[in-house]
Parts: sequence; C-alpha cells; structure tokens
Amino acid sequence: MKLLVINPNISTDVSELIEAESRRNLHPGTELTVVTARAGMQYIETRLESLIAAPAVAQAISEHRGADAVVVAAFGDPGLPALKELVDVPVVGITEAALAAASLLGKRFSIIAISGRITAWYRECVDLHGYLPRLASIRSLQDPLEAIGTVQDDFRTQLVELANRAVRHDGADVIILAGAPLAGLAREVVDEIPVPVVDGIAAGVNFAQSLVAMNTGAHRAGSFSAPPAKPRSGLSPELDELLGERQRLRSPSADPAVVEEQA
Amino acid sequence: MKLLVINPNISTDVSELIEAESRRNLHPGTELTVVTARAGMQYIETRLESLIAAPAVAQAISEHRGADAVVVAAFGDPGLPALKELVDVPVVGITEAALAAASLLGKRFSIIAISGRITAWYRECVDLHGYLPRLASIRSLQDPLEAIGTVQDDFRTQLVELANRAVRHDGADVIILAGAPLAGLAREVVDEIPVPVVDGIAAGVNFAQSLVAMNTGAHRAGSFSAPPAKPRSGLSPELDELLGERQRLRSPSADPAVVEEQA
Amino acid sequence: MKLLVINPNISTDVSELIEAESRRNLHPGTELTVVTARAGMQYIETRLESLIAAPAVAQAISEHRGADAVVVAAFGDPGLPALKELVDVPVVGITEAALAAASLLGKRFSIIAISGRITAWYRECVDLHGYLPRLASIRSLQDPLEAIGTVQDDFRTQLVELANRAVRHDGADVIILAGAPLAGLAREVVDEIPVPVVDGIAAGVNFAQSLVAMNTGAHRAGSFSAPPAKPRSGLSPELDELLGERQRLRSPSADPAVVEEQA
Amino acid sequence: MKLLVINPNISTDVSELIEAESRRNLHPGTELTVVTARAGMQYIETRLESLIAAPAVAQAISEHRGADAVVVAAFGDPGLPALKELVDVPVVGITEAALAAASLLGKRFSIIAISGRITAWYRECVDLHGYLPRLASIRSLQDPLEAIGTVQDDFRTQLVELANRAVRHDGADVIILAGAPLAGLAREVVDEIPVPVVDGIAAGVNFAQSLVAMNTGAHRAGSFSAPPAKPRSGLSPELDELLGERQRLRSPSADPAVVEEQA
Amino acid sequence: MKLLVINPNISTDVSELIEAESRRNLHPGTELTVVTARAGMQYIETRLESLIAAPAVAQAISEHRGADAVVVAAFGDPGLPALKELVDVPVVGITEAALAAASLLGKRFSIIAISGRITAWYRECVDLHGYLPRLASIRSLQDPLEAIGTVQDDFRTQLVELANRAVRHDGADVIILAGAPLAGLAREVVDEIPVPVVDGIAAGVNFAQSLVAMNTGAHRAGSFSAPPAKPRSGLSPELDELLGERQRLRSPSADPAVVEEQA
Amino acid sequence: MKLLVINPNISTDVSELIEAESRRNLHPGTELTVVTARAGMQYIETRLESLIAAPAVAQAISEHRGADAVVVAAFGDPGLPALKELVDVPVVGITEAALAAASLLGKRFSIIAISGRITAWYRECVDLHGYLPRLASIRSLQDPLEAIGTVQDDFRTQLVELANRAVRHDGADVIILAGAPLAGLAREVVDEIPVPVVDGIAAGVNFAQSLVAMNTGAHRAGSFSAPPAKPRSGLSPELDELLGERQRLRSPSADPAVVEEQA
Repeated sequence: MKLLVINPNISTDVSELIEAESRRNLHPGTELTVVTARAGMQYIETRLESLIAAPAVAQAISEHRGADAVVVAAFGDPGLPALKELVDVPVVGITEAALAAASLLGKRFSIIAISGRITAWYRECVDLHGYLPRLASIRSLQDPLEAIGTVQDDFRTQLVELANRAVRHDGADVIILAGAPLAGLAREVVDEIPVPVVDGIAAGVNFAQSLVAMNTGAHRAGSFSAPPAKPRSGLSPELDELLGERQRLRSPSADPAVVEEQA
Repeated sequence: MKLLVINPNISTDVSELIEAESRRNLHPGTELTVVTARAGMQYIETRLESLIAAPAVAQAISEHRGADAVVVAAFGDPGLPALKELVDVPVVGITEAALAAASLLGKRFSIIAISGRITAWYRECVDLHGYLPRLASIRSLQDPLEAIGTVQDDFRTQLVELANRAVRHDGADVIILAGAPLAGLAREVVDEIPVPVVDGIAAGVNFAQSLVAMNTGAHRAGSFSAPPAKPRSGLSPELDELLGERQRLRSPSADPAVVEEQA
Repeated sequence: MKLLVINPNISTDVSELIEAESRRNLHPGTELTVVTARAGMQYIETRLESLIAAPAVAQAISEHRGADAVVVAAFGDPGLPALKELVDVPVVGITEAALAAASLLGKRFSIIAISGRITAWYRECVDLHGYLPRLASIRSLQDPLEAIGTVQDDFRTQLVELANRAVRHDGADVIILAGAPLAGLAREVVDEIPVPVVDGIAAGVNFAQSLVAMNTGAHRAGSFSAPPAKPRSGLSPELDELLGERQRLRSPSADPAVVEEQA
Repeated sequence: MKLLVINPNISTDVSELIEAESRRNLHPGTELTVVTARAGMQYIETRLESLIAAPAVAQAISEHRGADAVVVAAFGDPGLPALKELVDVPVVGITEAALAAASLLGKRFSIIAISGRITAWYRECVDLHGYLPRLASIRSLQDPLEAIGTVQDDFRTQLVELANRAVRHDGADVIILAGAPLAGLAREVVDEIPVPVVDGIAAGVNFAQSLVAMNTGAHRAGSFSAPPAKPRSGLSPELDELLGERQRLRSPSADPAVVEEQA
Repeated sequence: MKLLVINPNISTDVSELIEAESRRNLHPGTELTVVTARAGMQYIETRLESLIAAPAVAQAISEHRGADAVVVAAFGDPGLPALKELVDVPVVGITEAALAAASLLGKRFSIIAISGRITAWYRECVDLHGYLPRLASIRSLQDPLEAIGTVQDDFRTQLVELANRAVRHDGADVIILAGAPLAGLAREVVDEIPVPVVDGIAAGVNFAQSLVAMNTGAHRAGSFSAPPAKPRSGLSPELDELLGERQRLRSPSADPAVVEEQA
Repeated sequence: MKLLVINPNISTDVSELIEAESRRNLHPGTELTVVTARAGMQYIETRLESLIAAPAVAQAISEHRGADAVVVAAFGDPGLPALKELVDVPVVGITEAALAAASLLGKRFSIIAISGRITAWYRECVDLHGYLPRLASIRSLQDPLEAIGTVQDDFRTQLVELANRAVRHDGADVIILAGAPLAGLAREVVDEIPVPVVDGIAAGVNFAQSLVAMNTGAHRAGSFSAPPAKPRSGLSPELDELLGERQRLRSPSADPAVVEEQA
C-alpha cells in the first residue's frame, strides 16, 4: 500500500522527525511518502494558524494522488474532518488517531503540549472529536521554544515531569505527547512514565494502515461523499481537477433522504 | 461605524440578497461594505466546501481593513471561530448570530435548509457552537435547486411548509431560515409561521452592531489574541501584512499561565 | 420602540445604575421605562430569592403593558424563560443576553460575581441556558458588601483583579461582570482587562432592541404561546387581565401535535 | 413524623386524589396534612403557570410550619429546588421523586402526560433534574380534558395504551404516569403495562419519609442554607417571619469559601 | 416483606456493619437477611475487583430466593444494573440509592472515599448512573487502612475533615460517605458536617422498601425482562435454575419492536 | 507477537468465524490463539448475560498467559474496561475497536444488530465508551435466529437492507456490523453498502496489533495498574495466581495522589 503523510507546516526539520517515526511503524510492503506543506507557518498553535494550514494540506493531497491512505501529521488535525470528503481513501489526523489509541489503552488521558497558547486549540480539537469527557488535563511547557525541530531534546526532562504530574495529580491513565515536533519521543521515555504513552505519528501511521487492511470501502453516499457539483472558481488547478473527478464519479442518489433530524 | 459583510461564496446574486437584508438592519450612521469571495464555490453544502471558503474570507478581511465589525455571511460559519483571532474587532458568523437570537426568543429551534446534503454540516456547526441540545430538528428541501439566487422565490411555499411541520411535529419554538440565499425571506413569511422566525443576516448585522455599541474591548490576551509570531511563508501579501501588524502589537505576556486544564 | 426594563429587586439605587447604563445603549427613537419591583429583596443571591422576585417581575410586566420588548435586569434571570409566555414581545434576561454576547465574542468566559453565596445560583442559571460547557470559572468577592448601590465603586480594584486572574489562570476569553449593581462598570475597566468585557445591562438592552428590529414575529403556537385558558384565582387584577387577554387571542390549534418526543 | 403535602394548584378534587394516594403510602406513625394552594390555576401546563404556582407553595409552607418533610405535589416541581432553601427539612417534588424511583427500577423511562402542551415543560423539568439522557419519550393525551378531577377515569384506556406504545416503540423500561390528577392510577393498571409503573405521589410520599428516616441533617451551610439576611419588603407576613427566623439561626460562616469554580 | 441485603465482599466484619445499619432503617414488618459473598475480595477498589464480585452477588441472589427486594451493599454497585434482569423484584445498589437520595436533598454532592485508588472506579460508577454533572468532588483518605472493619473508627476525624473541605471548597451541598465499611457513620457525624450526609446502606434499605411499598410491578417486557432462552453451560446449579424459571415465565412477545433508535 | 482472541461465549461455530476473520487481519509474524469460553451462553443479548460472560473471559486470560495483546471478541465488550487491569498488555474489546475505527472513518455511525433485545445493551456499551453523540441509530433483525453460526448467511439480505436504510434515513456515515456471528460479513458486502463498513473482529485484531507495534508501555500506576493486594478467596487457581503475580510486581507508589477530583 501507499501511505501519504503530510506535514501541514513548512518546517522541514519536523518533517524529518515525522518521517523517522513513520518509518518505525510501517507494515511490510507499505510505501511511504512524506510531504511538507508549501505554505503556512512553522508550527500551529492557534485556530487561525490551523485555518491557514488546512488548504495547504488539501493542496498537498491534490498534488500527491494515488495514496491508499493519508495521515495529516499536525496535532490539532487541521482540515479534519473536512478532508475526509476529498478522496475516497482514509484520511486520518494524528490527534484523532492518538485519541482513539488512548481510548483503547485506558479511560482518561492527559495531553502534554509544547506551549501554553496551544492548549485552547487542543482542547477544542479534543471536543470536536468527542473525547472531552475523557480528558484529564492538558499540561504544557511554559518557556519559549528555541527551535521547533529540537523541542523534544531541549525539553525532554520537563516533558517527562509534566507527564508524571498528570498521572499523579490529574488522574491520567494514558499520556499523549502532543505534536509532530515530539514524534518519536514516546518510545524513548516509556520507562520514565508509569502509564501507556501515545505518539500521534505512531498512532496515525498504524491506524491508517489498519483501516486500509480492513478494506472498509469508501464514502459513495452520505455526508462524506464527494460534494455535489456546482460552479466554482479560483481553486488551484490540482484541487479543481481532483474535485471534478470525484464529482463525475458521484452517484446521483448520493445524498441522504433524511428530511428531519431530531437532536 | 463601519460594517464589513463578507459573502464567503462567489455568488454575486446572493451577495445582493445579503446586501439588501443587511441594509434593512443598519443602525443610523453605520456604513456598510458587502464583499464577495474571489475564490470558492457558488454555495457551501459540505465541510470541505467550508474549508475552501474559509481562507477566502480571511483574504477578504485582509483586503478590507478598518471595519469596526465583520459579519461572515454564510450559514455554517466558514472560518469561525478562527477568524476572531485575525482582527481586534468583533467577527460574527450568521449561524452563531442566528443561534444566539433563537436562544433569546425561545428554547428549542428548528433549522430550515435548502438541501439534504447540507444538513450534516449544519448539525456539526450547531454542535460546534454548543447549541445542539436546543436543536429540535433540521428540515430541508429535497428537490434540486434551479438557481441559488432565486431559491427563496422558487421554493417559498415548501420552505414555509417545512417550518410549520417543525413547529407542529418537532417541538420547535423558533424557526431559523438558514443560508444567505434565504436572506430577507423571514420578514416576508412571519405571518405564515406561528413562532418567531430568524434570518441569519438580520441577526448577524444587528448583533455585530450591538457588540460594537457595547464597546467590550479587544482580545489582547487569551486564546483569541494574535497568534504568536513565528516563521511563515506562502501567505498572500495582504494576510501576511495583517498578521505581522497584529503580532507587533501583541503583548509579550499575552499567553495564559494555565498549565493544566481539568476537563 | 418602547423598551421596558425591570429591576426585579426593590433597590432603587440599583435601578438608577440600570437606567444609566440602559440609556448609554439606546437606539435613536427608543423610549425607555425603568421599573423597580414593588416587593422582594434588596438583591438576589439564591434560588429562593429568585423565586420570590419572579412574580414581582410578572406583576411589573402586567402593570406596564404596551412595551415592544422587556429586559429583566437581574443576573440570574428570575422568571425566565417562563416570562416569555406572558407577552407577545421579546422578554430578555440580562444573563442570557450576556451569555449570548460572550458566545459571539469568544469561546469560554468567566463570570465575576459580588458574593460567594451567589455563585451556585449563577452556575445553575448558566446551565439552564445551556452555556455550562463554555464556563471557564466563576470568581467572586468574598468580603461583605457595604451597600448594594456602591459595590462597583467600593470593590473596583478587587473586581478587576478577579477578572485578570480568570484570564490568566482559568482560560477565560471573555469576562462577564455579573449583576445589575455592576451596571456600567465594564466600559470603565475595559482597558484594565485584556479580553472583551460584557455588561449584562448593555447586552440585554442592545439585544432586546435588535430582536425588535429583526421583527421576528410572536409565539402564536408552541410552548411559549399563551397558556391554555383554565380556571384560576387569587392572581393580581393586572396579571389576571393580561392572561385573559392573551388567552382570548389564542388560536385553538396553538398546541403542538407532538405526541412523543425522543430524548 | 409530620408530613406536609402541598397541591400547588387550586383544584380541591385533585387534592382529594393526592390525599388518597398519599395515605396508601404512609408509614405507621406518619401524620399527614394535605394543603391546597390558595391562589393559582386549576392545573399547570406551562412554565408561566409554574411560576405563578411557586410562590403559592412557598406561602403554604410558611403557613404550615413544623412538618418533618414537605412534598410538592404537582408534576413539574413548581418552586423546586428553590424551596429546599426555605426550611431545614426535606422538600421533595413529585417529579424528582418519580425520576429517582424510575432510575432505581430501570435505565430509560417514558412519561405519560395529560396534554400536548404540558410536554415541553415536563421535558425541561426532566432536564433540570439531570435525567434527560434517560428519557425515552414523553407521550401525551391529545383530546381536551373534561374535568381535571376525572382525567384518570375518563382516559384510562388511552393512558394505558400510550404506556404500552412507549414500551414497545420507544425503549422505555419504566413508565411514569405524570401529574397529580393521575394519582393512584399506577397501582390500578400495573397488570396492564409490562414494565414497572411509577406514581409521582407514591414516590414523593415514600421517599420523603425515607429521607426523614435516614436522619441526614439539614443545610446549615452551602447553597441550600438560609439566604443571607438583607432588606426585603412586600412579602406575606408568614413568609417574612419564616425567612427571618431561618436567617437568625444562620451561621455567619455558612457561605462557601469557593472563589472559583471550574466548569 | 422480605429484604435480602448482600455484601459482595468476603468481609464478615463489614457484613456486621451492614446489618447494624440496615436494622436501623427497617420498616415494621420487614424481615432482613444479610448475606456475605462466598468468593471474592475483602473489599473492592477497582473495576476488576468489581467484575470478580458481580457473579458472587448473582450467586447469592440465586441461593436466597423469595426476597421482595434485594440491596447490593458495596459502593460501586458491582453487577448493577445487570442484576435487575435476574429477578422480578427491585434490585438496588447502595451507590445508585445514595445518589438518588443526594439528588433529592440538594444539587451537587461530594463523595468521601476510603482510598485514593478507589476514586476512579467510583467516578465511573457515578457516570454510569448519570449523576456526573452533579458531582462536586471525590475526596479520599490517603493512608493505608489497618483493618477494613474499623475504618470508620480509625479515620473518623479525617473523614469528617474531608467532608468539611468538600463543603467549603468544592461546592458540595450534600455529602455521601461512601462504602459499606462506613455504614452507620453518617448518623454519628451529622452534627459535625453542615450539609446533609447520606449513608449508602441507609439509602439502599430505605428506598428498596419504598419501591416495594409502591408496588410498581415487574419487568415482563423491555430490556430488563428475563434474557431470552438459549443454550448455556457451566453456570452454577442455582443460577442455572433461576434463569430457567425466569425464562419459562417469559412472554413470547417480551422484546421491544424497536428497530431503530436515534441517539 | 502473540495475539490471544477470546470468544466470551460457548459457541464454537462462532469461534470459527472469529478465527477466520482474525486470520485475514494478521500482520506477518503474529501468532494467533483463539479460545472459546468454557462457561456461559451461546451468545450475549443482555447486561446479565454479559455479566455471566465476563468472568469466563478473565478465566480464559488467566489460563492463556504470555500473549502480547488480547482481543475480547463479543460485541458489547463483556468485562471491559475492567479486564485492562488484569494483564500488562493491551486488552481490546471488539466494540471499542469498531467504534474507534468508525470514528476515524466518519462522524456518525449506525450499528446493525442481530436481535431487537440486544439493542439496549449495545446502546449502553456505546455510551460507556463515550460514543453516544456519534450514534445515528441501531437497527436490528426482528425474526428469531435459526442458528447463531449461520446468521450472516441466513439474513444477509436483511442485514444489508438495514444498513442501507441507516445510511439513507438515519444519517449514518459509517456502518458497524455488530457481533462476532457477523465476523467476515463486512468485506463481502462492502460493495452493497455505500459508506465504509466496519467489522468488529477486523478492527479489534488490527488495532490490538497496532497498539503492540506502538510499544506504548504498561499501566504501572494509575487506575488500570494491578489492584492493590488484599485478602481474597474462592477465585480459580489460575486467576488467583495471575492476580498474585501482578500485585507482587506492583510499585508501592502506584496509586494516584489525587485527593479530589472536580467533575
């Protein structure tokens, strides 16, 4: 199978961390492509930065077609779940994958984050995916980062300490080390934290391959099928072409007959 | 005051409907600018179409600076709440405004929508804003639209009938006629529907002016203040400039000291 | 338009604060009447005191008929949402208005209150209106009040400090200064608090006028239409007369056909 | 022990039904007083009617002091939970008692109601008490009532049929026959409905006696202790006297030290 | 009536505490049987220990048939609500009874527990019963227990102190002293805690008798009726016989016609 | 790695279906053991049957030690999450795995079940895992089953029809074919259902292997670590030995320092 992993940010050093951890989790025969966003920020801390990253991910998907699954490799899942409408293969965010993994390992989890500003956006992302009742806490570094590509080295001690505090004081049964800049750290500190530790990249890459293995089929109807055709303009040629193809393959009866939906 | 109303879609006929209903709700002295997105779709029915519309709205805000408040005039609130981080004045979506108005008029409400496909996205938008427990139902047209600019004329009878069914069968205390293509319809059919009827454009324009009148101050700290400065590339010149200005005015102590956040 | 603002408490000095802040928020042409409850407490801190205030508000509405909108000017919204059934114009509580305003300005908010005892009742009111998931915290003064009419002067420093702690430690994106005794304080301290600050009176007066401007129509059916006629006794002459009129105008088919309602 | 049961409505024929069912559930030695509200409606179908009934219940409690427990005998629990602040003995609403009983008998329940209009108010009452996730459905009579005192005889067949439909179609594990006018009906139809059937009066009278037997102590602190003393006027002499006595016995340190309350 | 109270643990000294408190709450004419589990742990602190206890409770019910009601006397309610399917009389857990009692006495409650490890399981039990929104806090002893049968004597001062902290700092309106080892303590410390204090055994015994008095009828249909007959093996003779009898009496139309169930 | 898959029921023909689908999802090098419960029912439809199955699963785990991961192969997840405390490797239920898979594939899902009676238990299981807000519907067969091992053949047409109705009428974006008796059906009908179709066995087997590959570490502290040692009796020798070993390896500081836990 072909796995496309997209770094929604312009940080190529983080892409290297993503690629290294991705490779540690590949199934035999999986062919990996890691792509770095061509526009955007060095890393995402806020809703607005996520809004800016999302179309760059859509563009990367449009430019690298033919994958059997896509992993969006920034915590906070920019563009999700909208991007699941864009192609007929699984598109998995590393946050939703980490949350799913944490849910299978325990009941309540804490997220360890790299900045104080990032926590509000993370919390909303957890809420969007429906896992807020399981969130024990978000704890974060407070000091300014020196370089995004070396956060896990520069702050390793503090990150482990935050995790242990979450276990001891917040009731966390599982720890999520959040953010692509921390890719690969979990497996290094697993003995220093007394509960399971989840790496978003590892979760995303594993589960994306699992979904392909399960051969569950595509969205040919319902709210994740291709958007209905309608006039558009100003899109990139690649995105425009991808949308056009998807819509031509769309069944005329793809939309649900639901006329009312009781809350 | 200066009010900027943005149609996130490329449909200029819908922009005319938006402008007409906006003008019916202006306070004396309010100066109105209505802008149409320069890229995107004719109208938005899905999460992906909303993802595509969001950066076009950000671009429009960046190009039309100096407003005292901004209204994002597509139901589903593309780009919200992220866009509240972009400028230091209120940015209001017509969905969140309609939901706030409905909540002040009654307890539970129904949304009348123009297509079956649109309902899943609307439901998620209501959930995002926290109003799902008050949603009685979403009822929608089932027939294909002839032209987006004439929906409210072409389907007036059906739309009123859907609203009456929601009142009679779903327990709706308030009706929201959803979508900018229906702008202005509410005040025409108010006598044909026996509960209050909310127009998103009217709600957005009124409440945006109200927020300015309240003079509540800007986000100089917290999760809606300007994103922290960091390397970026590939943004439009206008957006890049706006972000840069916002960040230069940003207090160094803008981020919260919150290190943990119990769910 | 005619706007009726009711102080549910017997404190005329608070009524003066209410009137002053109301006048700062009137649209051109709005005619303001401020009424003080003729029975009740000096101010409300508990559910029971709210129960006692509610019929005094109903009585005030019955005695001052002909308004185009009514604002109930005590935080905690005594009598809401029941009072929305009493007249065919918008009846808005300052809490629900403040919550709606806060929701349009940010995501999570904190409430700054004037006594520790009041916080449980406020929390239940936020819950009743459905905004509990957005509540970051309630912080309150701890010292006994000297006089209800001078709280905002006597405790200005402490109130601003509580607000700043809520921003810095609780994750509040918006501050609500709660209670009619604080009417007008928000606009004075807006520069001392680094997130938007909401005044309940300002929100209530602005949004009530907005709802009238939107011309949404009345509850002629559904659960906020006039209660069905039935024998009654012991009501005040004014309330009895108002109910009688409302019921005579009531359509015989006003009640919903809903026979079951799935949760 | 002395048990005070209050009919919040002016319907003396319903008071007789309440008294008869209450007597069937008295423990040996319990002395029963049934009181009918001196002002109000024949029965309550809406929030506004409940608002009107609540002070009549407060007045009845004030006039009949010395009880060891109070039962508020109208479905919808007018005045609850505020009335728990008024005396230092348990005050139990028949709705909250019926919901507690239903929760001990199964998981999800349906409510059978006497009018369509009443259902919205009932639903909000279930929500207020926190049981909405367990509500399978509310089903109600649709025909106009002939006399409130004979509803259970006039509509016995329809009520049983509604209950059976709730079991068969809505997933109800328990049935609540709602409203004091149905007092005593549950035990007559228990063989005609294949799941447990709860009578609110029976639940209220039994559980109120249980709470007294448990000797749990009174609210001398916290949010249900006596409201802090403050100027008041216009209250009935009985209510004024009761409040005054409660406040004189109030500990000066009764209020919580909680200054912030994370949601 | 005959009341069967089951200690799900093998601790006979705790059974004595259970029996003593049960006797203090018996109605005249109630015949009490207290049974100790024949297999299991000394006391339950975790989900796994509860899993181990549950079949021992089922076995005890099977061995002691003919009761009019059953109380499962371990906080955490091992085997509930499943055990409600096993017999056609009320089966009440002391947690669900304590929660129901607390809900009738106030709004929010705190649980005082005997070990730190036990709190996660308690929290999930509160959630299972739907009362999590009312939970103010769980506070627990931190020191190792000397003997389970003397916890309430060994730690009386600390337990009272924890309760007072919950009232003062967590906003608890009611205290639940959790766990059968604390049976009887509530009535001894009621003067030392300024809000109502609930004893699970007292609540379970009182409410079980109340439910019998209410004569609500059995589950002859729905999801708590006897499980449909099907091949089984390896069950204890007593449980096998009980199941067989229940199934022979089962109506062929016991299962609901519900084919879909909207969330 | 060694994967242990446990059929919690005594149905060996279903174990064969489980084994066949498991083998289709094994990673290279995974060694599979499928075990059938030695006591219990032919299949589980109710809470009580699940209670009976749970200790049989614990026994099977105790008898087959040394696995790197365990899959509990009955929909409804009998014994979960308690069994995660029993061993220091991942223990995954097929329901929680199917729900996690569905959540990565779309937003809302429907469950297709083999009997009407089973639906209440399934709903509670979905709720326990926190996915109820994403549940669109549960639809089930209504006819009696002929043989549990041939359900997927006997009712293939009906099952596919139920799935299509869920997509068309209930808003399901993903279908879960529920229950081990349906193991393997999803991949056969994937072309007949226009949204992704999840098989619980496939999800459980894939995700269990993924969790092992992620090397997340074990619960050495927190609420899923080994239960604290304490007297016990009457357990099977295998379970007793396993518990004893786990407890000897338990760190003395395994329990959290959390003394209070705000809801």
